[in-house]
Amino acid sequence: MPRYKLTIEYDGTPFCGWQRQDNGQSVQGTLEAAVLAFCGDEVTVGGAGRTDSGVHARGQVAHVDLSKDWPEDTVRDAINAHARPWPVAVLSAERVADDFDARFSATRRYYEYRLIDRRPPLTLEADRAWQVPRPLDHDAMHAAAQVLVGRHDFTTFRAAECQAKSAVKTLDRIEIEREGHAVVLRVSARSFLHHQVRSITGSLKLVGEERWMADDLKAALEARDRSRCGALAPSCGLYLMRVDYEAK
Amino acid sequence: MPRYKLTIEYDGTPFCGWQRQDNGQSVQGTLEAAVLAFCGDEVTVGGAGRTDSGVHARGQVAHVDLSKDWPEDTVRDAINAHARPWPVAVLSAERVADDFDARFSATRRYYEYRLIDRRPPLTLEADRAWQVPRPLDHDAMHAAAQVLVGRHDFTTFRAAECQAKSAVKTLDRIEIEREGHAVVLRVSARSFLHHQVRSITGSLKLVGEERWMADDLKAALEARDRSRCGALAPSCGLYLMRVDYEAK
Repeated sequence: MPRYKLTIEYDGTPFCGWQRQDNGQSVQGTLEAAVLAFCGDEVTVGGAGRTDSGVHARGQVAHVDLSKDWPEDTVRDAINAHARPWPVAVLSAERVADDFDARFSATRRYYEYRLIDRRPPLTLEADRAWQVPRPLDHDAMHAAAQVLVGRHDFTTFRAAECQAKSAVKTLDRIEIEREGHAVVLRVSARSFLHHQVRSITGSLKLVGEERWMADDLKAALEARDRSRCGALAPSCGLYLMRVDYEAK
Repeated sequence: MPRYKLTIEYDGTPFCGWQRQDNGQSVQGTLEAAVLAFCGDEVTVGGAGRTDSGVHARGQVAHVDLSKDWPEDTVRDAINAHARPWPVAVLSAERVADDFDARFSATRRYYEYRLIDRRPPLTLEADRAWQVPRPLDHDAMHAAAQVLVGRHDFTTFRAAECQAKSAVKTLDRIEIEREGHAVVLRVSARSFLHHQVRSITGSLKLVGEERWMADDLKAALEARDRSRCGALAPSCGLYLMRVDYEAK
């Protein structure tokens, strides 16, 4: 059974999330149905990150085993043809070793969160960013965020329903900068807790609005208390950008 | 009758274009209905450029006369509130002199055209760019395009139904560069012919694909013959970015 690594882009808006569900169209289910239509294989497409409903991806990674050794470009183009009209695209398909696992072999994940701080509603970026009506101090957000870098107990910044055994994670990098009319947050870690990026973003938005000081963010982290988190940032601003693996 | 200058952004996808029509939702009609709902005035919203169906704007400009002297921010916010759920937003409203005319006072218009050269279909940029499956040589496109700068008869690059009396226009600037995974064309002139930017882009795409040499573009311009134009680029990649006016 040849294994393929798929790099995947999607607009998360119409999906119930990455993970296959009984009700609703999932990204995973769309890809599995496309594989079935293409070559008749009933497969499981295993993803690196289970993005929530409305969350986008520019570089989600998944693996899939096919019964036949198809050329890589054929796998990419055939899945894309059969996934229409759903807004998901396989950017590349590569033959990989049988022990490659999109989720467990991943060494680093990169997320981006986009905010647009203006009063008028979004048009071209509707469902692509979080519109906040007040101007954000992105430098204050960046400075405050640095307290989150490193190994911490992120209990404050994870979903109540998060299934990870431990809330201790190591954040490699978090950067907030202005790009055109958007404020962009970029974060990377080996792995993340459920809702971790959106929880952090919701709290940093309060810093950007000057409703929290940097010390309030630090105190929230140290409290290890979900109730101390800022309101969860909406899913539409979040993008899974890239997943790294060990070079073999 | 106080006159306001409106700077407007829209996602052109669901609209039949800027101009009010009997059939279909226009940007102009949406704004006029929003003004009526806001203050009861039956107005004409005069735009700087009559963008086609599917064409977007980040900086369309229009003027409108209201019967009452409303604060600028009220005009902006009230129109936005009443334009929902259509994807059009007034970015700013400014009180201007009675002789300000969005169309006839304009001294320069700026358009952008976005192409994405890749085989996989677009997801996050669907309806926001022109997807072309072959790699584009953007440097060749930029070099070839320079022949269009200056004063020329653009008969080759205008719509058959274009109503301008003369096809002679002066192109101030045309630049093509790669930005991330997109190839972006930027062009400015005092005014444009109908379909001029999309006609030029369609021809430059042939240069980018190495199906045309720079000399072919030059010959097409000099032929002053619509049949020598490359296939019209689709509307979804075009953005009206900005309109300049004389400082008063």
